[in-house]
Amino acid sequence: MSYSKYQDLDEYRSCWVCFATEEDDRDASWVRPCRCRGTTMWVHQMCLQRWVDEKQKGNSNTKVACPQCNTEYIIVFSKIGALISVMEGLDRIVNKLCPFAAFGIFAGSLYWTMVTYGAVTVMQVLGHKEGLSVMEGSDPLVLLIGLPMIPSMLILGKMIKWEDYILKLWRKHSPKISLLKYLFPNDSAHLARIPAETTNMSDPIEITRMLCGALILPTIATTAGKILFGNVTSNFQRTLLGGVAFVGIKGALKIYYKQQQYVRQANRIIQDYDTSQPVNT
Amino acid sequence: MSYSKYQDLDEYRSCWVCFATEEDDRDASWVRPCRCRGTTMWVHQMCLQRWVDEKQKGNSNTKVACPQCNTEYIIVFSKIGALISVMEGLDRIVNKLCPFAAFGIFAGSLYWTMVTYGAVTVMQVLGHKEGLSVMEGSDPLVLLIGLPMIPSMLILGKMIKWEDYILKLWRKHSPKISLLKYLFPNDSAHLARIPAETTNMSDPIEITRMLCGALILPTIATTAGKILFGNVTSNFQRTLLGGVAFVGIKGALKIYYKQQQYVRQANRIIQDYDTSQPVNT
Repeated sequence: MSYSKYQDLDEYRSCWVCFATEEDDRDASWVRPCRCRGTTMWVHQMCLQRWVDEKQKGNSNTKVACPQCNTEYIIVFSKIGALISVMEGLDRIVNKLCPFAAFGIFAGSLYWTMVTYGAVTVMQVLGHKEGLSVMEGSDPLVLLIGLPMIPSMLILGKMIKWEDYILKLWRKHSPKISLLKYLFPNDSAHLARIPAETTNMSDPIEITRMLCGALILPTIATTAGKILFGNVTSNFQRTLLGGVAFVGIKGALKIYYKQQQYVRQANRIIQDYDTSQPVNT
Repeated sequence: MSYSKYQDLDEYRSCWVCFATEEDDRDASWVRPCRCRGTTMWVHQMCLQRWVDEKQKGNSNTKVACPQCNTEYIIVFSKIGALISVMEGLDRIVNKLCPFAAFGIFAGSLYWTMVTYGAVTVMQVLGHKEGLSVMEGSDPLVLLIGLPMIPSMLILGKMIKWEDYILKLWRKHSPKISLLKYLFPNDSAHLARIPAETTNMSDPIEITRMLCGALILPTIATTAGKILFGNVTSNFQRTLLGGVAFVGIKGALKIYYKQQQYVRQANRIIQDYDTSQPVNT
């Protein structure tokens, strides 16, 4: 094969995919899809189609360009009918709307769960019959806004770390008040040092703990009310008293626990390595 | 400062944190916390405490070792009271249970939403009154299992891609049947090539689309039933007919759409770059 019989080098056709020339297959269809000249100018239509398929990896809208001269290939499709064109548009609209619709489904589910939780809580706190009659007598709009407020408020309330605030005040002022020193002789007056702040864990476990604590509170409040304030006749008052008592006692215990840990941390001692020798102080 | 006055080099004390010697501060408490000898043997108790605090980064349970000899420091805490010990145990148990409880809350919410969706669907399909009376007459256990099955089945049903199966059969057998060739002259008989498989999108949008499609089906079925089969008196039969008609028509349109896209893809042409020259065929 010599180029001599071609007046113009560009007329010599050799496919850059399969390397076959015009003489190898006289029926094949040729295309010169880019700015390239010379040996990469011509390519078989079918070879290039296969090559484009490979580059597009199943997404027929991907643009494909010549790897040498970077010219984008011009891919021509047959005209589409009116029906197909309408369907294509609908498909695109549905694709855009679906994420919003799915978010709506999720938000609706959450809202409905919150409404249900609120209603169950009302019946738990007021008693089954009284709770039902109160809700039936209420404006539906008030219920639709008020009931989901119940779990929201419980969770928001749980996020207020009032124990930490009291603890801070305690550590700041307790050394100055002699009565407190007398009542808690084992406290911060004896601290060997100020320990490092322990990290306020905001990890996933802490979040699930907050959520569970908030949502179980009405049940605990009802139980505590029945145990501690059995002589109170009003369901609501008894549960409220039970809830306040539980939160107060738990808070006090938590403050005590944290302060004890703080004092232990402050008074820790690092020992000599060889325990047979006396501790050097 | 000379070492000569110390009989043993190990008796010479210099803190490896602050570099102060015994003579600089005669009251400071010393510790030899690791296997090190010589200049890194002794360290001030307070200096080492600060250094340990820094290494622990707020988590007081982290083990700390000597950076030179890798001996783990022995940190001794004061004894804890029974109450604190019990609280520590409770805290650990609560921390372990909370992720499960939170998962339970999530699963319960999902289940409750599914029950509600099922109940709404029953009332939509059977009519408000009839649906209510059917549910009131049913065994509660059947309802608690049956109602959440409704959205589950709708979603599972949506996952069966029956259109793709029919399309595959069509592409395989339609060229062999001459009646089909006569009815659809513009179809696969003319394909220039077999196009690459388009990717079966399993991306998030496709999932939300499936979810929305499954959950809106009862509403569409009721509407389609009223429009197409208004003369059917039974609510259930009318909705069922409407649903089957909708799924059938939509499936047929989808098959048509996909086949047209397939044919277009098969018959696409890559053009010559210079459009002023005639297309080489």
